[in-house]
Amino acid sequence: MSIKNAFYAQSGGVTAVINASACGVIETARKNSDKIGTVYAGKNGIIGALEEDLIDTSLESDEAIAALKHTPSGGFGSCRFKLKSLEENKAEYERLIEVFKAHNIGYFFYNGGGDSADTCYKVSQLSEKMGYPIQAIHVPKTVDNDLPITDNCPGFGSVAKYIAVSTLEASYDVRSMAKTSTQIFVLEVMGRHAGWIAAAGGLVEDQGIPVVILFPEVEFNQEAFLAKVKEKVEQHGFCSIVVSEGAHWPDGKFLAEQGTRDAFGHAQLGGAAPVVANMIKDAHGYKFHWAVADYLQRAARHLASNSDVEQAYALGQAGVEYAIAGENSIMPSVIRTSNNPYQWKIDKAPLSDVANVEKFMPMDFISEDGFGITDKCKEYLYPLIEGENYPPYKNGLPDYVTLKNDCVGKKLPEFKV
Amino acid sequence: MSIKNAFYAQSGGVTAVINASACGVIETARKNSDKIGTVYAGKNGIIGALEEDLIDTSLESDEAIAALKHTPSGGFGSCRFKLKSLEENKAEYERLIEVFKAHNIGYFFYNGGGDSADTCYKVSQLSEKMGYPIQAIHVPKTVDNDLPITDNCPGFGSVAKYIAVSTLEASYDVRSMAKTSTQIFVLEVMGRHAGWIAAAGGLVEDQGIPVVILFPEVEFNQEAFLAKVKEKVEQHGFCSIVVSEGAHWPDGKFLAEQGTRDAFGHAQLGGAAPVVANMIKDAHGYKFHWAVADYLQRAARHLASNSDVEQAYALGQAGVEYAIAGENSIMPSVIRTSNNPYQWKIDKAPLSDVANVEKFMPMDFISEDGFGITDKCKEYLYPLIEGENYPPYKNGLPDYVTLKNDCVGKKLPEFKV
Repeated sequence: MSIKNAFYAQSGGVTAVINASACGVIETARKNSDKIGTVYAGKNGIIGALEEDLIDTSLESDEAIAALKHTPSGGFGSCRFKLKSLEENKAEYERLIEVFKAHNIGYFFYNGGGDSADTCYKVSQLSEKMGYPIQAIHVPKTVDNDLPITDNCPGFGSVAKYIAVSTLEASYDVRSMAKTSTQIFVLEVMGRHAGWIAAAGGLVEDQGIPVVILFPEVEFNQEAFLAKVKEKVEQHGFCSIVVSEGAHWPDGKFLAEQGTRDAFGHAQLGGAAPVVANMIKDAHGYKFHWAVADYLQRAARHLASNSDVEQAYALGQAGVEYAIAGENSIMPSVIRTSNNPYQWKIDKAPLSDVANVEKFMPMDFISEDGFGITDKCKEYLYPLIEGENYPPYKNGLPDYVTLKNDCVGKKLPEFKV
Repeated sequence: MSIKNAFYAQSGGVTAVINASACGVIETARKNSDKIGTVYAGKNGIIGALEEDLIDTSLESDEAIAALKHTPSGGFGSCRFKLKSLEENKAEYERLIEVFKAHNIGYFFYNGGGDSADTCYKVSQLSEKMGYPIQAIHVPKTVDNDLPITDNCPGFGSVAKYIAVSTLEASYDVRSMAKTSTQIFVLEVMGRHAGWIAAAGGLVEDQGIPVVILFPEVEFNQEAFLAKVKEKVEQHGFCSIVVSEGAHWPDGKFLAEQGTRDAFGHAQLGGAAPVVANMIKDAHGYKFHWAVADYLQRAARHLASNSDVEQAYALGQAGVEYAIAGENSIMPSVIRTSNNPYQWKIDKAPLSDVANVEKFMPMDFISEDGFGITDKCKEYLYPLIEGENYPPYKNGLPDYVTLKNDCVGKKLPEFKV
């Protein structure tokens, strides 16, 4: 049997550590060059496979690949592109298999969230039907932390650390200023459907910081919220608020949609943070500041959690090791074996159990009043933000790598997505 | 002559390193306990002096004081409170002198920006007139970087590092996503009157990132801006924009005021970032993301510049050493002696040359098209973001100190500001 090549692609929103998974895949493949040939990476994700834009990672030096471990973003480019169902667009799946066949690719490593787990599963099913064997391995990644089975999703731990640290630092700032100036600080964080990221802001409560969290899981109750904020300010002199972008009114309308209009009359110009801040000002007169973290939170490799980096790498590595061992249609997953000290191992989950299953934040992670997190939630979160994993610096800036990303020659007719 | 006590206060917006200056003042005073008595700190800044809320820093352990060096915010509380002119409110200045007299305070260390330099200067003048000698020393601090004589102002270097690193990381993120999703990232930064902080975002150009800066010093030209952004996106596939909160139209109106209205019809709900982002979307259709850094940037001790931390400490230390040497009415200042390697020393500047003098960004720091920074500007900025100075961590979070802040007994009748 000839040695098969591998295909690796990054999918969906990138993170501070998705490149660490890429590094785990490529370094492990290089160590097993007697069993796995060239690792081709999709230029801009799965689109690269469909359009036969295959980055030849063998042209990158060992140093460049090692530097992926400390470089945020998607080093090969990612994309927001969901393959339709097999019925709706079989041609795309067939094209994938054709490209894999043309380049002697026998391993498919797909690094993404729920949608890509589903795609990965379909590819493995179709390859069977089409009689061209592809071992499809899904390497988990998503700041949304919503994949099942795995203890957490790489990318989430670093966002959680960033949000917890940022909330702590800004809260110290507001505490200093509260006597004559700012009493309220509002931080808007990612999470349209789940409050995992917002929950991380709740960790600062253990540092004596008064904090109110607005989760997408809890319908917004303006009266209760304003009363809670007032109570905190009267007790502490200030209050921090962490609002999820998905926080919404009982009728489902996002707080961010609260009638904001730009000069041209367009809705939804602002975010949830200014809406919440102004609401407090109107009710209580407290002076406020607000921030919207947006991409800063998921790109913040400078503050990555060490456990997140290590797991992202380990999952990429395990993906290749499972592939060499003949596994197919699985997702390497983190299994937590102890909270304190945090201990974990890697196991495999069948993709049939992963695809189309969404993990929600357990309701017993949210405090009874709906504005905070429980001890159980803290027990879950602390291990994920454990340890610092700093990138090297040069001239005061992180020394991140930009790859050459040269593609291998095309062999097939053109195909445009 | 009996040993005199000292008074130290933090003024105005706090920074990631103002506590490092406090640490420099208190540790140096402790080392010279044969020459300086107790250091009292104003609770919430100068208001603490006026209301006789004097924190007895001798009750804090050496460890707690040392931890100030790595703790952001104002450890004793700060305030936005500007003493009026001597003519308008002589009573406040006289009260200060009375409080100093009652607590045998002979040294006044005021840690702040331009306004506090002015207050410091007036206190030294008045103490002469009132025949109660006070050595008034201004310790510079401000993220605005607008004090004269000193090479830079402690606090600025760390904000500059935070903005440069954040712009770099978010730009890598956008670059990954640009094929099918976000092509524009807009980051709003502080700087109502000066573009120092926005300029730091321009450093990422050296990392191959297309970036457009909107300075308060340059009247906003919508047509030229939109053309510049289009040019960058067509060349690179994406573009990052760093907009100063003080960016404004030719008529002086801030971009942030661009007709934004909340549900109640209130103006100025949003920031400049969403206005700019929507403007680009309307003109070119590019998908965008935007962030507002707000307090996160000035509180980000987790990413402090080492040169900033060292200078903040050295200026506090020098303040005490100058005081012991009999100096009065001065500001210890950083004098740059070499760019590469960055070398600097501390010298003293007379407060008469500092008070009411504002340092602007030199116009030859801004590129000819008004959207970037020059090599001269980069030469100035790089040394200020040099080196990393990480705080210790515990359970995944920085181990910042919260002081006891116990006050000494009052000796004077009540006085309310």
